[in-house]
Amino acid sequence: MTASKPMDSAAPTVSVIGASGYSGAELTRLLQRHQGVKLQHLYAFSQAGKRADDLYPATGCPMTYLPYEGGTQSDIYFLALPHGEAHSLVPALAAAGKKVIDLSGDFRLKSTQEHEAFYGSKKPAEAVMTYAMPELFKEEIASATTVSNPGCYATSIILALAPLFRGAGGMPKVNSVACTAISGLSGAGRSSKTELSFAEMSENVRAYKVGKHQHTPEIMQALGTSSTDPSFAFTFTPMIGSLVRGIYSTLTLSLDSPAEAQAIRARYAEFYQGAPFVRVRNEMTEVRHVAHTNFCDIHIPDSGRSSSLVVISAIDNLLKGAAGQAVQNMNIMLGLDERTGLL
Amino acid sequence: MTASKPMDSAAPTVSVIGASGYSGAELTRLLQRHQGVKLQHLYAFSQAGKRADDLYPATGCPMTYLPYEGGTQSDIYFLALPHGEAHSLVPALAAAGKKVIDLSGDFRLKSTQEHEAFYGSKKPAEAVMTYAMPELFKEEIASATTVSNPGCYATSIILALAPLFRGAGGMPKVNSVACTAISGLSGAGRSSKTELSFAEMSENVRAYKVGKHQHTPEIMQALGTSSTDPSFAFTFTPMIGSLVRGIYSTLTLSLDSPAEAQAIRARYAEFYQGAPFVRVRNEMTEVRHVAHTNFCDIHIPDSGRSSSLVVISAIDNLLKGAAGQAVQNMNIMLGLDERTGLL
Amino acid sequence: MTASKPMDSAAPTVSVIGASGYSGAELTRLLQRHQGVKLQHLYAFSQAGKRADDLYPATGCPMTYLPYEGGTQSDIYFLALPHGEAHSLVPALAAAGKKVIDLSGDFRLKSTQEHEAFYGSKKPAEAVMTYAMPELFKEEIASATTVSNPGCYATSIILALAPLFRGAGGMPKVNSVACTAISGLSGAGRSSKTELSFAEMSENVRAYKVGKHQHTPEIMQALGTSSTDPSFAFTFTPMIGSLVRGIYSTLTLSLDSPAEAQAIRARYAEFYQGAPFVRVRNEMTEVRHVAHTNFCDIHIPDSGRSSSLVVISAIDNLLKGAAGQAVQNMNIMLGLDERTGLL
Amino acid sequence: MTASKPMDSAAPTVSVIGASGYSGAELTRLLQRHQGVKLQHLYAFSQAGKRADDLYPATGCPMTYLPYEGGTQSDIYFLALPHGEAHSLVPALAAAGKKVIDLSGDFRLKSTQEHEAFYGSKKPAEAVMTYAMPELFKEEIASATTVSNPGCYATSIILALAPLFRGAGGMPKVNSVACTAISGLSGAGRSSKTELSFAEMSENVRAYKVGKHQHTPEIMQALGTSSTDPSFAFTFTPMIGSLVRGIYSTLTLSLDSPAEAQAIRARYAEFYQGAPFVRVRNEMTEVRHVAHTNFCDIHIPDSGRSSSLVVISAIDNLLKGAAGQAVQNMNIMLGLDERTGLL
Repeated sequence: MTASKPMDSAAPTVSVIGASGYSGAELTRLLQRHQGVKLQHLYAFSQAGKRADDLYPATGCPMTYLPYEGGTQSDIYFLALPHGEAHSLVPALAAAGKKVIDLSGDFRLKSTQEHEAFYGSKKPAEAVMTYAMPELFKEEIASATTVSNPGCYATSIILALAPLFRGAGGMPKVNSVACTAISGLSGAGRSSKTELSFAEMSENVRAYKVGKHQHTPEIMQALGTSSTDPSFAFTFTPMIGSLVRGIYSTLTLSLDSPAEAQAIRARYAEFYQGAPFVRVRNEMTEVRHVAHTNFCDIHIPDSGRSSSLVVISAIDNLLKGAAGQAVQNMNIMLGLDERTGLL
Repeated sequence: MTASKPMDSAAPTVSVIGASGYSGAELTRLLQRHQGVKLQHLYAFSQAGKRADDLYPATGCPMTYLPYEGGTQSDIYFLALPHGEAHSLVPALAAAGKKVIDLSGDFRLKSTQEHEAFYGSKKPAEAVMTYAMPELFKEEIASATTVSNPGCYATSIILALAPLFRGAGGMPKVNSVACTAISGLSGAGRSSKTELSFAEMSENVRAYKVGKHQHTPEIMQALGTSSTDPSFAFTFTPMIGSLVRGIYSTLTLSLDSPAEAQAIRARYAEFYQGAPFVRVRNEMTEVRHVAHTNFCDIHIPDSGRSSSLVVISAIDNLLKGAAGQAVQNMNIMLGLDERTGLL
Repeated sequence: MTASKPMDSAAPTVSVIGASGYSGAELTRLLQRHQGVKLQHLYAFSQAGKRADDLYPATGCPMTYLPYEGGTQSDIYFLALPHGEAHSLVPALAAAGKKVIDLSGDFRLKSTQEHEAFYGSKKPAEAVMTYAMPELFKEEIASATTVSNPGCYATSIILALAPLFRGAGGMPKVNSVACTAISGLSGAGRSSKTELSFAEMSENVRAYKVGKHQHTPEIMQALGTSSTDPSFAFTFTPMIGSLVRGIYSTLTLSLDSPAEAQAIRARYAEFYQGAPFVRVRNEMTEVRHVAHTNFCDIHIPDSGRSSSLVVISAIDNLLKGAAGQAVQNMNIMLGLDERTGLL
Repeated sequence: MTASKPMDSAAPTVSVIGASGYSGAELTRLLQRHQGVKLQHLYAFSQAGKRADDLYPATGCPMTYLPYEGGTQSDIYFLALPHGEAHSLVPALAAAGKKVIDLSGDFRLKSTQEHEAFYGSKKPAEAVMTYAMPELFKEEIASATTVSNPGCYATSIILALAPLFRGAGGMPKVNSVACTAISGLSGAGRSSKTELSFAEMSENVRAYKVGKHQHTPEIMQALGTSSTDPSFAFTFTPMIGSLVRGIYSTLTLSLDSPAEAQAIRARYAEFYQGAPFVRVRNEMTEVRHVAHTNFCDIHIPDSGRSSSLVVISAIDNLLKGAAGQAVQNMNIMLGLDERTGLL
């Protein structure tokens, strides 16, 4: 009998700091079975001393969470910490030449002003990393040492808009985008808030942070504009609903000239040709189609020739919106097929 | 001991035709305990012969569904039939002087052209009744004999927009509305479709009929414009999610001039001053707040001074969106307090 | 126009102490529309100062929660407090001649020893009230001033067993009962526990307190035996699942002689003949059949002639298992039809 | 860049007949990423001509369902057909020397009498294969050519009982077992039944086939007894609840002598020592712990020294209860580590 996971002994080692949250648990699961790396340490804080498969039995991972005390033994570090906590850890890791993939919002925004306006906290001016959305910035990611993994809503929304914003010669200009997005409740993390209890959230829908969500400037930045001087009106209403995983974004675009959905779809299909995890689908997309996968599905319903256009995208917030995309980024940074361990 | 429901023996009698669907079951429940009317007959087709409390034990109603064969014994008739089936029944009821409250889409649209475009079926040109949205047309309803009960999405969306469209002097003009609305799955009726099974719809969200939903012309008509020559751009994306009851509508409005959410809210509060079931709330609205009630809750989040405005409304699709509003209309037609039997 | 709820000005007044929990919210809703009493005050502690329709918009109740400071203005008091808190309040209310309906476990058990063993806290020896299960003790309730409302699991299980234990001449003797019961998560109250969050409890089932639940001695007492010297082996596994409301109990009985399910059913039907809220059904019972109602549905599946017998019962834990049964008790104590305000 | 799934070109080929159901979709997903076999054909009937990733986008599998016309090209065949349809296909596959793993109930029972009593259909007397529960019959499976994969409830219940029945010297004898089990709704297959719609099953629980479920004789057979002359009383109440995946079984055992839960747990731990997918846990087990995994988790709550014993087990009905266990069996038949492709 052979081992269940054949592994090159020279495989790079990887550790997760902040492994006890929901994204951390997904990283644990994905990295444990990944053929190209060796999972070395799981670090946690309040849960240090517990075993991963006690806190998250579904991971089947027998490792014990360790308190992180500054080690740099691994080749690669995933940081899945609450916002604001990665700032102090990254410099030492970077100085030691480690590859770092940060899943928080700490290093996403180039503008400290926008960071402070939306996160409500200071950040060091130098705290900017390569914005690691593989479908847009694959080459930069491949050559980067430290990267910032996109936000969950941001992933779903940027992928739904990028083909009309990036190198979109010949396409109509977008005047405004009205966006609503329903997120699964795992997006709020392991929570003890009454308003996120099952008794309050079953059979419920609730919007929050209307027009104020911190992913707004991230979206604008990735599309080549900014939230302070935007090239188009963007109104974003995030919501939570009765689901654990998934983000379902509906974007209603006002274009400067009428277009056929078919032509737009063709543009999207071409734009995402080499992107194995983005699927431009002819059928309506659903959360169920992408849950527990790293796919982002996009559908553009037929609407006749119109200057109003609807684009719908769906992802799993913990995978394509967090841990899956992070592993995809690691694969790219290691020169592996970006799909490794994600299918 | 006295009976559990004291009743004037001279109370008007009421029957429901199409009582075995979800709206019919709610009508059964509401009318059975209503203090001002006497529930006389429940009519159904495929379920004729069954008892209401066998098909819907929660109603506790021991009446047996009868096949409807054209009787006119009752004073009031609710019609809760599939679209297209009420056309042939109403004339005889109307000729016999009966009060009729029709819950289908058969009599809502003044324009036969719009009806045919959106319902895909012919309708008699004379098939138009008073559009019975109490908050907009209470006087017409009070004096009408036959009324058409609004659609569920339409109720939620019209109530969220009316204060900016009807007698809205001094308010900014609405240039466009991008609307998404999540409906509970009871809106699809008692269904045997695979795609509406629990296994497919749990933890799911799915849009459908994007830009094509039949409530669109109804909304435009109630706001004083039409879907063929609209005074504002309206894009509507209906969705279903993992809930049984409720409609949660998010409307992103583009105004012709900037406004403060506060001023808009004041306008809404004034507009709905005498409307006991519409609540303009300062806190975020949720489906849970209105489920199993006849309320429509509306919230307008703060957004600074802006020409983008978000309005959120929530109803229970089976109550304010169907059976509850129908009973409210009956109360008005009978000269009763419109809240009777609905609190 | 007349008021929506005609009310005799001489109607007794009623207040709720502990009105801001889930049972309190149901009491608010039920008492507000009750034709035979006048809701006077809602008392709460941490939520004092808030309006009921802000905390629970679905109640539509505009009253403000007051801190309870010992008043005795009302004729009737419902106590919906956490276990252990009613002991100190009841004596003064009782001394003032008020009718008291306590929804906690404080006054249910005659045995202080059992109370201490299962609740883990002391109780005054005199802290015993009439055990107010209307189907078993209607006359005692009618003449009582203070009553103790049964527990939710206990209601569902006692009603499923009573016909074989109370005056069951000619019926087989029950040797053992293995009981599992799934409860909705509202049973845990307004909770901020991580393990009761939507993200943890959606699509989940979890047993707890196996063999140790505090309703066990209450069940034994109502059936005429005790948990310390039981006349039959009782094993109880409570569970929580992905639902907000409802208790679904499955009891597997071992009888001392074979019986036909049909004969047992006949016994149950006879036993509950005058009980308007207990329905012995020939069809399988489901939570959906009783949710949002005060019914307890019982079904005994066919099993041929056997000494193993399965009995299934379903209730809404917040209504028949708490607030609904409490109002039913109030009706009995006031000499009203016990169904008043509950249909 | 390397391919995402390195594969020996000499890997055995595998096909799935009946690939378009829920178990088939899980087989598709598991086999596609399995490192030790090559997925060759997906066969379906009503869905022939469709692509797997159109019907089940989450599989990401671009293969097209073919109609099965008797081919024997592959080395291994999984049959995931409705009960009764495998009988006619297996002989030809067996005659051609193919390895066959049948997921239906067609070949599970040795007794044709029991088969006919519980399945309500005839079966050929010779239609019996190795009962492929790896934890009990690993050696037989390793040397078998055709095997019958256990039922979902049966898996959960047999694993929860086997340590007290198979080679259980020194353990108390089991006199009776009262078993309730809640299944996710995927267990009913892709369904178009009204009673399995989301609107009917959300927030619901419903028992069915009480005492009559077809997995009963399978359980008795695996434990070394039979349903016609059982060595212990077995009462089984299956239920469906508001979840898609999972089986949560609660078994209340009556023993012939008192035992400590601790001693029983030790016996279980020893019995499952070499079984990588069965975990005897000290903490309460939950559906969430095993959903989307091939684990069976078992917990035995403390109950003091007692002759009543509760055993709780949880599996994912589509994985350990169907497709996962089938792949585990394939691994054993191919001499691979049984965990291959399942972690």
